[in-house]
Amino acid sequence: MQLVLLSGGSGKRLWPLSNNARSKQFLPLLEKEDGGMESMVQRVVRQVKEADIDAEITLATNASQLDIITNQLGDAVSVVTEPERRDTFPAIALAASYLKLHKQCDDDEVVIIMPCDPFTETGYFRTIGKMAECVKKDVAELVLMGISPTYPSAKYGYVVPGQGADGEWLPVARFTEKPTVEVAKQLIEQKAFWNGGVFAFRLGYIMDIVRKHIQSESFEDTRSRYAEFPKISFDYEVAEKAHSVAVVPFSGEWKDLGTWNTLTDELHHTAIGNALLGPKCENTHVINELQYPIFVDGLKDVVVSACPDGILVCAKKETENIKKYVETLEHRPMYEERRWGTYRVIDDSTYDDGSHSLTKSITLQPGKNISYQQHHHRTEVWTFVEGEGIFVLDGEERHVKAGDTVVIPVEHWHAIKAVTRLTFIEVQMGNPLVEDDIVRKEWDWKD
Amino acid sequence: MQLVLLSGGSGKRLWPLSNNARSKQFLPLLEKEDGGMESMVQRVVRQVKEADIDAEITLATNASQLDIITNQLGDAVSVVTEPERRDTFPAIALAASYLKLHKQCDDDEVVIIMPCDPFTETGYFRTIGKMAECVKKDVAELVLMGISPTYPSAKYGYVVPGQGADGEWLPVARFTEKPTVEVAKQLIEQKAFWNGGVFAFRLGYIMDIVRKHIQSESFEDTRSRYAEFPKISFDYEVAEKAHSVAVVPFSGEWKDLGTWNTLTDELHHTAIGNALLGPKCENTHVINELQYPIFVDGLKDVVVSACPDGILVCAKKETENIKKYVETLEHRPMYEERRWGTYRVIDDSTYDDGSHSLTKSITLQPGKNISYQQHHHRTEVWTFVEGEGIFVLDGEERHVKAGDTVVIPVEHWHAIKAVTRLTFIEVQMGNPLVEDDIVRKEWDWKD
Repeated sequence: MQLVLLSGGSGKRLWPLSNNARSKQFLPLLEKEDGGMESMVQRVVRQVKEADIDAEITLATNASQLDIITNQLGDAVSVVTEPERRDTFPAIALAASYLKLHKQCDDDEVVIIMPCDPFTETGYFRTIGKMAECVKKDVAELVLMGISPTYPSAKYGYVVPGQGADGEWLPVARFTEKPTVEVAKQLIEQKAFWNGGVFAFRLGYIMDIVRKHIQSESFEDTRSRYAEFPKISFDYEVAEKAHSVAVVPFSGEWKDLGTWNTLTDELHHTAIGNALLGPKCENTHVINELQYPIFVDGLKDVVVSACPDGILVCAKKETENIKKYVETLEHRPMYEERRWGTYRVIDDSTYDDGSHSLTKSITLQPGKNISYQQHHHRTEVWTFVEGEGIFVLDGEERHVKAGDTVVIPVEHWHAIKAVTRLTFIEVQMGNPLVEDDIVRKEWDWKD
Repeated sequence: MQLVLLSGGSGKRLWPLSNNARSKQFLPLLEKEDGGMESMVQRVVRQVKEADIDAEITLATNASQLDIITNQLGDAVSVVTEPERRDTFPAIALAASYLKLHKQCDDDEVVIIMPCDPFTETGYFRTIGKMAECVKKDVAELVLMGISPTYPSAKYGYVVPGQGADGEWLPVARFTEKPTVEVAKQLIEQKAFWNGGVFAFRLGYIMDIVRKHIQSESFEDTRSRYAEFPKISFDYEVAEKAHSVAVVPFSGEWKDLGTWNTLTDELHHTAIGNALLGPKCENTHVINELQYPIFVDGLKDVVVSACPDGILVCAKKETENIKKYVETLEHRPMYEERRWGTYRVIDDSTYDDGSHSLTKSITLQPGKNISYQQHHHRTEVWTFVEGEGIFVLDGEERHVKAGDTVVIPVEHWHAIKAVTRLTFIEVQMGNPLVEDDIVRKEWDWKD
């Protein structure tokens, strides 16, 4: 069985914690039984394994998320990256092409598609097992999960079941897009389910549809022609056109922790990071990723989140609306996880004389390296403050350690590899208006 | 006439904006008519000048405030610094000794003592003029300002007037320390005033009392013997022992902007710094001195203050109580104004291997310099990012400018002088537990 986790795009609804490089599914905010913290996607991958589902996992995602996925999941999953954002049908078509053309899976193999970040429980994964059984028994071309609604939400699509069932599944009569609350009430009276975006089918079924758009024997070729897939959702292109669709009900815990309001309900601590809540706080959560201590008092139903990208102080009930405001605050990412480690912008200043400096704290994991590169419009000064590594300047490797400083003038080629965990403070000076001032080439490490 | 402004100590009640090096009276938060900003002490000095009082101003303060006073007031005032904190009587005794022994003022000269930071209006300064007239007419040994109470406060001392007056002044029958609210109501029925800490007397009167504790012909000698003054308030040591005391009433605007609740009432803008308030905010103020953008929504009667020392998010009515909590958050000052300019800590990190780095952005004003110094336990790397200056290392002066980097190893003597406004990023590495790791000596600048 092949399990494809769809990893969605940038989320501004959990600003400032989430940004383009760190979507909500990667935030390490959920507490595990052992007291450690995990992200939503780490939790789902762990749950898949604990549910003893015999499935190989593939993450379908945008290229910008590759580094953070590698950091969080290591080699536990395969990753398929879309060259550009389109819609759910192209993303699933590309993942299916990967399974068929790259992994050489059989046409009869059962494929499960699901979001990478539902906050749910074991029963959800047992339901996935039942869906796979239904596909194997050929009860329908397409089998989807129907989540029992707990209230008449206007946020979800609905699946209306028809007559006839065998207990484990029901036939699907029709789909309904996000309805009004009034219509949602009627749908619930008709025993409709929420469409949670979990689909099961045989690989051959979806590949027949894929080949209507791109016929190719090579995954790399398919990926290079990704723009030929129409920008359309899986629901429109596949689910609504299927000759037979079955739904397998699930009625356990299932939440989208996509807003501060829903996310803070699942936090075990009211203060994460350097923060103190006074005695007059009620249902108030503070998440502090900055070095500055936070003191909060006299607030009720409020979330405070302080991160390198900004600081949010908001009544929880208003957090669904922050997106449109914080988009006006946008500036460069102030924190990123990369395949080699992390960086944090600690100062970004423009001076009266027009000069500009950007100061970062950069940490490389042992054995990792930053690529060999040059800049045409900026100089950099690196002061090593932790660990040791190998530094290359214009083809010369040298050993560096905490206490050393290196100056990298404009146009000089440079790279760095960590021997132990390695941290340096980088001061960049140059023209902040020149974007992508970077040229890379290969370096063959001697040491 | 000599006007002595008493500059009080560190205030935690306006944390994180105020700290040991920046008390509330120095916060540049009040808007002037021209739209510029000024601090409470700048406002008072401006008001004294606008009221056309013919007075020389002396600021009596702690040594730690000297740099910021010089930055804010330049040469407009004389400054007397106490070698240690004692109480109001020693502070006033030292200021009087300065006027008598250093400035050689006459015994008959009228001295006015007042706090440096009342939020008040022109009438207050006209009242000071009336008090000086009363002293000149010898209506009493000691003349004080009586502020008409607006409510039965338990926060202030009260002055109860006796019989007999000439319209401008009343004799004082007795003083009452901070009463209960019940007693305060009775005092107000008896026409009592608040004691606002404004006193007028002839210099000779106070010097007779000073000489009971320290007899000296030299101000420097008096200052060096400062510890011989008893730790006692001016009210106890002088006002309550005086043979005759008069009170001059004042009934205009007068506030202590000592808590966030009172201070934010006087702010002209709800957002100062990089901050955005959403449409669901009511009576909410944000003061942001950090580079991180702040978004606030859905809050009522709340203050948000983000500064290098920390971040406060607090219901305004709880702000009187923050002191005891934020004292537990204490760490090194993250921002200071010095006689040469300012610095800001942008990163303070300890690493797994025990090493430590402290990164600052340091700005010197043109012509100013940092003293010639060495450190036994830390190295420093300075990367200049704005302007130009003269750098000294082990006795060698050299010109430096934006783009240059200098490395200062342990035990090497160094100093820097700004030619233009000069900014550099300093990365310190060393033992953070060694405090005051600095030795200074004179440097005779050639350039």
